[in-house]
Amino acid sequence: MSAAIGRLAIIGVGLIGGSLARALRAAGQVGEIVGCGRGRANLEQAVELGVIDRFTFDVADAVADADVVFLAVPLGAMRAAFASMADAVRPDVVITDGGSAKGSVVADCRAAAPQLLSRFVPGHPIAGTERNGVAASFAELYRDRRIILTPLAENAAADIARVRSMWEACGAEVTEMSVAHHDEVLAATSHLPHMLAFGLVDLLARMKENDEIFRYAAGGFRDFTRIASSNPVMWRDICVANREALGPMLAAFAGELQELAQMISASDGDQLLEIFERAKAARDRYVDGITGADG
Amino acid sequence: MSAAIGRLAIIGVGLIGGSLARALRAAGQVGEIVGCGRGRANLEQAVELGVIDRFTFDVADAVADADVVFLAVPLGAMRAAFASMADAVRPDVVITDGGSAKGSVVADCRAAAPQLLSRFVPGHPIAGTERNGVAASFAELYRDRRIILTPLAENAAADIARVRSMWEACGAEVTEMSVAHHDEVLAATSHLPHMLAFGLVDLLARMKENDEIFRYAAGGFRDFTRIASSNPVMWRDICVANREALGPMLAAFAGELQELAQMISASDGDQLLEIFERAKAARDRYVDGITGADG
Repeated sequence: MSAAIGRLAIIGVGLIGGSLARALRAAGQVGEIVGCGRGRANLEQAVELGVIDRFTFDVADAVADADVVFLAVPLGAMRAAFASMADAVRPDVVITDGGSAKGSVVADCRAAAPQLLSRFVPGHPIAGTERNGVAASFAELYRDRRIILTPLAENAAADIARVRSMWEACGAEVTEMSVAHHDEVLAATSHLPHMLAFGLVDLLARMKENDEIFRYAAGGFRDFTRIASSNPVMWRDICVANREALGPMLAAFAGELQELAQMISASDGDQLLEIFERAKAARDRYVDGITGADG
Repeated sequence: MSAAIGRLAIIGVGLIGGSLARALRAAGQVGEIVGCGRGRANLEQAVELGVIDRFTFDVADAVADADVVFLAVPLGAMRAAFASMADAVRPDVVITDGGSAKGSVVADCRAAAPQLLSRFVPGHPIAGTERNGVAASFAELYRDRRIILTPLAENAAADIARVRSMWEACGAEVTEMSVAHHDEVLAATSHLPHMLAFGLVDLLARMKENDEIFRYAAGGFRDFTRIASSNPVMWRDICVANREALGPMLAAFAGELQELAQMISASDGDQLLEIFERAKAARDRYVDGITGADG
């Protein structure tokens, strides 16, 4: 019995790309896995760990004869990757990606390799940790996690199905939505919270006697700001890539905080209580929806 | 050998008051503990659990003959509590509290019982959980946690020392600062983050298709918004009590978020990266300062 994917090319062998490779290997769904990246040490480690079979630094070399190409490079490197593979892929290749914003990646494909649009099924696994690199990858990263696919009008149904099957073989739950809707939902639930955490920690760090201020931060502050330890370069790329959804949303939220500040300064307890009660009810409902109890 | 505190009156027998009672009892530092509150079931449970020896619904009755009075009522109930005890306490009583804002509590004492200002040593234990009620209290809540005392010019050194010893007997680390400084530090590290979490969850809850939005919220969102499950009434009280520090700070932060939104819309990657890197460095330094590793 032959594997579902004869040859898989992973462009960017880190947590996201490495975990997909491991999961497909564990599921017996892939023949050969070719890794491509820029750092020799990371790629050599990927081979030693059995995550990939061989590696190259050349994207065109990596994608030649690949059945499926998975793009797991930073958002800022997507356009160059599409340009490099434009004339190197097989005509029946299926390309997908793991980028946290989708409109920008589609625009990158359209700009750098428009003939590949029909072969490109954009995707976003809602999974990850604060750790980077292939050493952090593991086969169970996607188990019971959501994968959002944002198929294009140019895609063939069979290609979308192939990407869906790939993720389902990793134990993930796959859903589909439009590119624009994905970028709105992710701006709200991920990108905006990261801006608040980065912004708050930066505000406190710039206050006088900031060492003392951090000393009195209690346990809740630690959870609240954990995401401010995320990779700054990756988040710069996400902000720029998803600026059309995130910019206006952050500006609107800043306006709401101004109103909240006015309520506080005016001692408007009734309005404050209404907001806090509505938020607590939504938060408790959200957590119940996930697990039935908070962690 | 007699206990350090012959009779302790706890006004408000919940997580904070109940845990102080348990810790002092465990340390052999207290004779009799009288509880005072409004809910009979909670007070009866406090007696059954051995947290208090007896209870009353009358503040004046509770504080009569008490060596030390601990006020653990919501900030909105502090003024009435001072008024009720004004003519009932012993002249050598020492009063302290656990309120999350200090300026408002001092103002409440000054307004309702100015003759007690010299007997009142304001305090704030930086400890707590999301749970409420005496059933959630435990003797170790204050172990290795910080207690901030904000002594007044009217206080005698011996009374400040007595409150300090009480908390140290619970295993806590006691520091002192001014009322105004406490309220600034807490606005920055606790009250402001709570406003962001409440505000964000409320924003998402009011968005179209909010059930779907919460469905795609990944793990980081859960940590980030945990504090939005806190008690809405308590947080209304804290906002009103600390409005002078919190209102301007929240307004200033909203202004910074507007700038961040503009950087995003303008694709100003360099400025974004600078902010994210500064924030990550500060967050990592803060966590290293606490434990040496993130949880």
